[in-house]
Amino acid sequence: MTELTSKVDREARKKASQILRDTFLKVIEQVNKGEPPVMEIPKRTLSNTIYDEKRGLLILGKEKLRRNFLDLNEAKRFMQTTLMASIIYDALVNDEYPTIRDLYYRGKHSIILKGPNKTYEENTWDEQKESDSVIVDIEVFTNLLREDMLILSKEKGKVVGDMQIRSGNDIIDLSKMGHGAYAIEPTPDLIDFVNVNAEFVLVVEKDAVFQQLHRAGFWRQYKAILITSAGQPDRATRRFVRRLNEELKLPVYILTDADPYGWYIYSVFRIGSIQLSYESERLATPNAKFLGVSMTDIFGDKNKKPYLSEQERRNYIIKAKEADVKRALEIKNYDWFKTKGWQHEIEIFLDKKSKLEIEAMASKGLKFLAFQYIPEKIKSGDFVS
Amino acid sequence: MTELTSKVDREARKKASQILRDTFLKVIEQVNKGEPPVMEIPKRTLSNTIYDEKRGLLILGKEKLRRNFLDLNEAKRFMQTTLMASIIYDALVNDEYPTIRDLYYRGKHSIILKGPNKTYEENTWDEQKESDSVIVDIEVFTNLLREDMLILSKEKGKVVGDMQIRSGNDIIDLSKMGHGAYAIEPTPDLIDFVNVNAEFVLVVEKDAVFQQLHRAGFWRQYKAILITSAGQPDRATRRFVRRLNEELKLPVYILTDADPYGWYIYSVFRIGSIQLSYESERLATPNAKFLGVSMTDIFGDKNKKPYLSEQERRNYIIKAKEADVKRALEIKNYDWFKTKGWQHEIEIFLDKKSKLEIEAMASKGLKFLAFQYIPEKIKSGDFVS
Repeated sequence: MTELTSKVDREARKKASQILRDTFLKVIEQVNKGEPPVMEIPKRTLSNTIYDEKRGLLILGKEKLRRNFLDLNEAKRFMQTTLMASIIYDALVNDEYPTIRDLYYRGKHSIILKGPNKTYEENTWDEQKESDSVIVDIEVFTNLLREDMLILSKEKGKVVGDMQIRSGNDIIDLSKMGHGAYAIEPTPDLIDFVNVNAEFVLVVEKDAVFQQLHRAGFWRQYKAILITSAGQPDRATRRFVRRLNEELKLPVYILTDADPYGWYIYSVFRIGSIQLSYESERLATPNAKFLGVSMTDIFGDKNKKPYLSEQERRNYIIKAKEADVKRALEIKNYDWFKTKGWQHEIEIFLDKKSKLEIEAMASKGLKFLAFQYIPEKIKSGDFVS
Repeated sequence: MTELTSKVDREARKKASQILRDTFLKVIEQVNKGEPPVMEIPKRTLSNTIYDEKRGLLILGKEKLRRNFLDLNEAKRFMQTTLMASIIYDALVNDEYPTIRDLYYRGKHSIILKGPNKTYEENTWDEQKESDSVIVDIEVFTNLLREDMLILSKEKGKVVGDMQIRSGNDIIDLSKMGHGAYAIEPTPDLIDFVNVNAEFVLVVEKDAVFQQLHRAGFWRQYKAILITSAGQPDRATRRFVRRLNEELKLPVYILTDADPYGWYIYSVFRIGSIQLSYESERLATPNAKFLGVSMTDIFGDKNKKPYLSEQERRNYIIKAKEADVKRALEIKNYDWFKTKGWQHEIEIFLDKKSKLEIEAMASKGLKFLAFQYIPEKIKSGDFVS
């Protein structure tokens, strides 16, 4: 009989449950020794978030918080953490695949405390925000990402290219997806790269443009691994891209709209989000390159002829909104945007107050986009960095 | 050398460009005969949208509008239509794969009219809304869906199951996707079903729940084709589901949250959207069944024991919002919800003002959801219909 679940998953379960168990056993040891149970967890505050310039990564600093069960201010959070850890542990040993949403439901209940004169009622948590935050605590405390604990999530990332991977019990040929694509699994660390015949990775923000490039045969022509994040990238897509870069040494190019939202998507791939720097160490791709669409592609500058004519600019350009300008000013101050190239890019934007969608480039002809604009920029190293 | 594009696409191009050409040649014939050029296009108004009870479909009635070039009120729309048709035709014969967004850009420009004393300037269109509406006109005028004209779009639908399909130049085994899934192409009419070993289709609204069921081996255990629409279904997912039902005679079950938004998703699969009834004839699956989560699953009724205990209801139920109640009242009046089952369902909702997410069911244990709740309901025919 065919097994219902994969061997890879069973091994991952064993490993994660062991680590989770060992970590929390230390808390129990404290109790056994008559000490107050305390968890020392790396602080996830902004002040403990450091941009490591050498590695090009956001990382957590050395500051730790001590979550003490006997401290009234900490007791609830302490209990929430152990409750969630026990739910995740149960899920691991019982072959479950929870999501963060159902972990919220699994733990949600009221605790009734009968006092001498009064009955107290307290909810374990009221909103998913609370239980999510506890999950992150467990991630930094155990140094296991949620994916390592087989917590699943929705996944938008897709990939095609001349490459075979092993996922679950199958070997999948990503060059044989027809007009469709391979939807990346939520636990990309469990993927094995079996056979790769590619020279670079192109990540496209927009799914529709991914479809166009795929269908036109772009990846076949240029030996590319073609990926879309379908908007803001999720964790699995980021981790998958990082692994292609780190393990296979493939350069990674990011193609987004020419606007601050596109820059932010690039930034999430390259650095991660400031709020979740703990994950950036494994999810970010510090040497991902911003291929375009850049402001100099649109307007040119003293060293470069623009890709658009005056008339095309008139037809294609969208006026920037207040929110775009605000976001651009924020991004301008991020450490990793403080390069000559990016400051130039952002200044052109703030000067012209103009943005452009990739679709405008496709409308000049898909052949222009796929077989001229993108390869020309890659060949000449025309990135913003 | 490997071809960059597929043979299937080249054949589809030939067919669509021929039909497009023939349709618009008739307009030119009118001109040649000295007649005013007129397009007769089925009306897409609400009054010309009919619920065909026998077929269970929304269809366009017999009313047509006459778009006359020599009528001042119609001239702009007439020109927009011919402009768009020529852009789509060019794309077809030039091996392009446009999206509706880049079709908007391709046609966007200003037409300058030099009068004796004054120069007039008129934009072909200002917003995508306008060009999209023209595309729909061309669809109903030519009886070609945009997909037939190789207009691509973003696509969210995923599928796994014991089934082989031919897409493009490849044969793809949907039972060998590992932990990932097959992302459906934007032109699902070009897919061939090669080999199918399945008994039913389960469509899950939420991608995360799809991941859970997939990973737990649900489709393997029950010979299901497992699909997610990842929220509101797009056209390709709807067409793919319809084809599975119509051509392979597989029953289709829809699993959504227990709320009016979930019912609406079911309604889009089953009937299509009221605004776009012209497409429903090919995209809707009139005999799709609403599997759950139903209000009677939550609360039970005189004939049925609920799946949730009193305490589970307390922990899982979400209070309905004003907007939910409003939407429920709208849905209650749709013709295809005027059945005993649906009116009962909607009345319980309006009475309890409560909704529930599928994740709450998963939190009772994925095994409960995958190996008890879903199969039990299918086996006993416990649908809302």
